[in-house]
Amino acid sequence: MTEAYKGIFPIAPTIFHDNGDLDIEGNKRVMDLMIDQGVDGICILANYSEQFLLTDEERHQVMLLSIEQVAGRVPVIVTTSHFSTRIAAQRAKAAADAGAKMLMMMPPYHGALLKADEDGMIEHFARVADASGLPIILQDAPLAGVNMSVPFMVRLAKEVPLVCYFKIEIAGTANKLRALIEAGGKAVVGPFDGEEAITLMADLDAGATGTMTSAMIPDLIKPIVTAHAAGDRKKAAALYRDVLPIINFENRQCGLRATKSLMKEGGVIKSEAVRHPLVPLHPKTREGLIELARELNPLALRWGK
Amino acid sequence: MTEAYKGIFPIAPTIFHDNGDLDIEGNKRVMDLMIDQGVDGICILANYSEQFLLTDEERHQVMLLSIEQVAGRVPVIVTTSHFSTRIAAQRAKAAADAGAKMLMMMPPYHGALLKADEDGMIEHFARVADASGLPIILQDAPLAGVNMSVPFMVRLAKEVPLVCYFKIEIAGTANKLRALIEAGGKAVVGPFDGEEAITLMADLDAGATGTMTSAMIPDLIKPIVTAHAAGDRKKAAALYRDVLPIINFENRQCGLRATKSLMKEGGVIKSEAVRHPLVPLHPKTREGLIELARELNPLALRWGK
Repeated sequence: MTEAYKGIFPIAPTIFHDNGDLDIEGNKRVMDLMIDQGVDGICILANYSEQFLLTDEERHQVMLLSIEQVAGRVPVIVTTSHFSTRIAAQRAKAAADAGAKMLMMMPPYHGALLKADEDGMIEHFARVADASGLPIILQDAPLAGVNMSVPFMVRLAKEVPLVCYFKIEIAGTANKLRALIEAGGKAVVGPFDGEEAITLMADLDAGATGTMTSAMIPDLIKPIVTAHAAGDRKKAAALYRDVLPIINFENRQCGLRATKSLMKEGGVIKSEAVRHPLVPLHPKTREGLIELARELNPLALRWGK
Repeated sequence: MTEAYKGIFPIAPTIFHDNGDLDIEGNKRVMDLMIDQGVDGICILANYSEQFLLTDEERHQVMLLSIEQVAGRVPVIVTTSHFSTRIAAQRAKAAADAGAKMLMMMPPYHGALLKADEDGMIEHFARVADASGLPIILQDAPLAGVNMSVPFMVRLAKEVPLVCYFKIEIAGTANKLRALIEAGGKAVVGPFDGEEAITLMADLDAGATGTMTSAMIPDLIKPIVTAHAAGDRKKAAALYRDVLPIINFENRQCGLRATKSLMKEGGVIKSEAVRHPLVPLHPKTREGLIELARELNPLALRWGK
């Protein structure tokens, strides 16, 4: 790595046809849209990509087509989490071979109860790092059911130096970022937040240098990050105030379906289908979302027209 | 289905080489051992089979080789759980095509938080039943993080009649079995327990007609079930008392590693490796297990010698 990644690295949704099959063209169009949204990089196969609803083969297919379509225009981050260390390492190697620039990983987990102890987690990441040689962004999110302390994360970063980016998206993200930056020093190359940027302003104030939003309105969120990085906190706060209602609506009412609805509405994709047991947005919820979006006129609503 | 399955249907472990690769021969030998143990059926790809540490391709391979090796000598139950309804249905169809006699499934779950609501669960099982035409044993275990009430399970059995077997292995299994049998009537064809048979006597007293133990000592557990079914509760209790120390040691000290250790010790398999982040038994724990086993002299300790 020559320079640290900073800025906005949204999650790409995985696009399906109405019958649930992968929509290859739709997935490619999402890559092009996201680059036009001005993103600094694209993260694929994350939870907002419905990674938990894909077969191994589909994951591989989405990875290859995404990296090919992006064709080096921005870095692609590939999520390679698996409870099995061996399988996570195999996925990581495949991502490196395909041209990924970074991996995103949760700590190993399965279901509500299975996790590794701290030594097991270190070993897990060490083997993945060895297999791929890629920097890793550690995802600290409630879904894994794993509580990682700041001292543990710093130990991990020191023992496995490729783990140098951290995406915090839990209750109290800003304070955890602050503590991590202080305790980790140079080992923490990239403190990021996530969760649709619902706490972005507080997280930037705490020292976040990157954000992993959804792909819904990164064109409108990027200027907040840019203004804040340039020292214009007032401008950042004003821009944040403008987008907070739709981010709040996305975060609390829609989840990963919001991005797909805007992209469908804007002609980017043909179907906003999600895979069962996820269910479509209630029509009234969708209406509320699109109403908020129209006021902001983001690229996703215009790109395919 | 002509007759209800009753008796002992243990979980087959998945056997690896020391380097973590699937051991095809080892997996086949386990099938032969289990039939010699006198089991009434074999369940594969369950949690005790380390299903959460296998790729999709490895699951498929283990399924095919197991069913082929068993060759109809006993029914094979294939676990096909996946959070995605579509993928669970695809796995179920593949199991039916391969010759499975039943499916085992947990309700849809992913990580600590993702689950379906009750309508979503009904739909999930309905689509799997449609895709396969096979009876389904619903697994009610803490790992999924899903609380299923007795009224819900009865509703599921009535709306999706192929869901007619129930493997309860939670806190208070005996009383849940009792309530399920009473509320479900004929819709509950097979009330089973699981969890290594750690609560077998209470569960049989509550009306369980089947048990899903590990493959460690089914030859010694089957006589308990047989005696109890024949009305000889006293004999069942005495036999249960004899095996409880090793079952307790398995359940609380070893988990899925116990079966593999006995099979290795008895020359059934060449490696008792588990996949990281699972770790080998502590040597002292293993010693304690084998000591308890030697007193009982189960088939697993003798079969490969």
